[in-house]
Amino acid sequence: MNSLINSDFKHPSTCAPEDFLDEVSRMINQSIIRNSDGKLRSIALKHFESKGKVLRPIFIRDLALSMNLDLASVLPWAVTCEILHNATLIHDDLQDGDEMRRGKPTTWKEYGAEQAINLGDFFLIIATQDLIKCSLNSKNELLHLFTVMSSRIVSGQVDEFELNKLQTKNNLYQQYLDCIAGKTSSLFSGLALGVGLIAEASKEVLNSLEDIFFQLGHIFQIQDDILDFYGNKQRGSRGSDIKEGKVSFLIVNYLERNPEDFGLLAGILRKKRVDTNENDLKLIEKLFKDNKNLEFCLDHLDQRVNDLRSHSFFVSNTELYNLVNSLVEKVLAPIVEISRLHLKV
Amino acid sequence: MNSLINSDFKHPSTCAPEDFLDEVSRMINQSIIRNSDGKLRSIALKHFESKGKVLRPIFIRDLALSMNLDLASVLPWAVTCEILHNATLIHDDLQDGDEMRRGKPTTWKEYGAEQAINLGDFFLIIATQDLIKCSLNSKNELLHLFTVMSSRIVSGQVDEFELNKLQTKNNLYQQYLDCIAGKTSSLFSGLALGVGLIAEASKEVLNSLEDIFFQLGHIFQIQDDILDFYGNKQRGSRGSDIKEGKVSFLIVNYLERNPEDFGLLAGILRKKRVDTNENDLKLIEKLFKDNKNLEFCLDHLDQRVNDLRSHSFFVSNTELYNLVNSLVEKVLAPIVEISRLHLKV
Repeated sequence: MNSLINSDFKHPSTCAPEDFLDEVSRMINQSIIRNSDGKLRSIALKHFESKGKVLRPIFIRDLALSMNLDLASVLPWAVTCEILHNATLIHDDLQDGDEMRRGKPTTWKEYGAEQAINLGDFFLIIATQDLIKCSLNSKNELLHLFTVMSSRIVSGQVDEFELNKLQTKNNLYQQYLDCIAGKTSSLFSGLALGVGLIAEASKEVLNSLEDIFFQLGHIFQIQDDILDFYGNKQRGSRGSDIKEGKVSFLIVNYLERNPEDFGLLAGILRKKRVDTNENDLKLIEKLFKDNKNLEFCLDHLDQRVNDLRSHSFFVSNTELYNLVNSLVEKVLAPIVEISRLHLKV
Repeated sequence: MNSLINSDFKHPSTCAPEDFLDEVSRMINQSIIRNSDGKLRSIALKHFESKGKVLRPIFIRDLALSMNLDLASVLPWAVTCEILHNATLIHDDLQDGDEMRRGKPTTWKEYGAEQAINLGDFFLIIATQDLIKCSLNSKNELLHLFTVMSSRIVSGQVDEFELNKLQTKNNLYQQYLDCIAGKTSSLFSGLALGVGLIAEASKEVLNSLEDIFFQLGHIFQIQDDILDFYGNKQRGSRGSDIKEGKVSFLIVNYLERNPEDFGLLAGILRKKRVDTNENDLKLIEKLFKDNKNLEFCLDHLDQRVNDLRSHSFFVSNTELYNLVNSLVEKVLAPIVEISRLHLKV
């Protein structure tokens, strides 16, 4: 038996911006190899062959640069956040019955539900290992932050499952916002707060970072919901959210203005995935079109972006303002085309 | 939005042996309340209303006492190990399709697969939170140990899923031992190693603790496999392992001596749970009886207990010898009756 306490591994002492994502990727692979063998190792390594957008490490890198941090100091935190994010994707795909992710079959689809549970668990467990071994002053706060933000993600998942039951038409909008606060925005705000802790920033800066990235998380999730219906998310087919009965932003926004259609939409959303057909999607598309729902949603998103840009913290922090502006552009890039295609015709 | 870094909580500075389990339970409930609200909080608290055998905290308490440690110092570690154990049970029940646990419906059975995934994730995430906040010198080593032993548990689950496919009859016995090393014995050895780290014990003592409790883990799992077929584990019905197609110790032990029956047993084990009937169980019972399989298994267990009692470390450590002896008795208590009932008649 190999001892459980054979644990030496090193972190790089410096890291160039252009090497940051490669280094995160290398550290993730090293962590997988260090902690697994056989089947588990092979499915874990295979999962990370398709990297996705790596938005969260990019956010961490860019934010660290804007705060004049040595990038090596935020590497373990970027590894933690990216592994956590992937753990939640694997379990989320299983919970939602999503069959495609990043243009490939999801873990449960390829290896079965049991192994998808195992792989997500494995990633949740190893997410903090590099962080535990690092020498940051803020290590304990970061580890604690990991437990709090991860708990909120799970809590968002729990609430979303309840929301999707559509047991009541009251308060849907607020319930939706509570869900995305947990499942999406807590990781956005948490990753920024983590960088602030590593920079040993003041309480005021920490609060502002948390707040700004929380808002960015909402913007990301709302564009993601719009993208699911009007775009191509490499998830096999359009309208996955409708098929899996998800109460998305498009739905809550529409029902906010057309509560009389609750029964109609709930009837479609409550159908089993295999029973939802093209006509259901076309009916919803028509309702949305007649009601200018996409326009309302994009206006709402616009308003959120303007609110974010007007954050009081930016008055004295133009560098962070510029950074957040560029991150907003990255976040909204996938739906710029949708906005052009669907609204200007 | 509540800030992600609102994190003050205190640990007790002393703890009496008779209060230890209550204190572990209280800390677990506090951690649940601190990290959740609404639905998640209610299903998490409800899960811990049925405590089970709390074997792992008992082991930690008894081992700490034998090493003259203040029990307060091992409380966070006991909380970590007990929450981790419960996380694995919740996901394991879902993976195996087990409907009853501790005389009650399992989480997936009561709340659905989605929420069982969420609850297990939540427990994995909060398992280390008390540990992160404690002031032990060995904290970093304990946190690292948590990631390593948890990874091994998941690895054992992955391998067990592969083993249960019964794709080959070669090496079943060794494959079985590898699985239980991961899924059961790594937590037993890890929890003991953790107590050794808290006691700042020598490398020699750490290695011995790890080895001794690893062996105890094997003894526990083998009795658990026997109990599933011949006893009452409060899991609704006898022979769950057979119904869910598990390659248990009874199976590998029988096939080791009767390889010609591989096809017959594999045929029954590969059946879906609902298709496995009373006659299948009776056939296996008859094969086992004709072949004195239970006697062989109990003899094997006896041999393992004797090997453990002869561990060289005990020569100079009678206190640990006495402790391990009493733990072996606790571990084997559920099958003493089986041994009496089935063999002496």
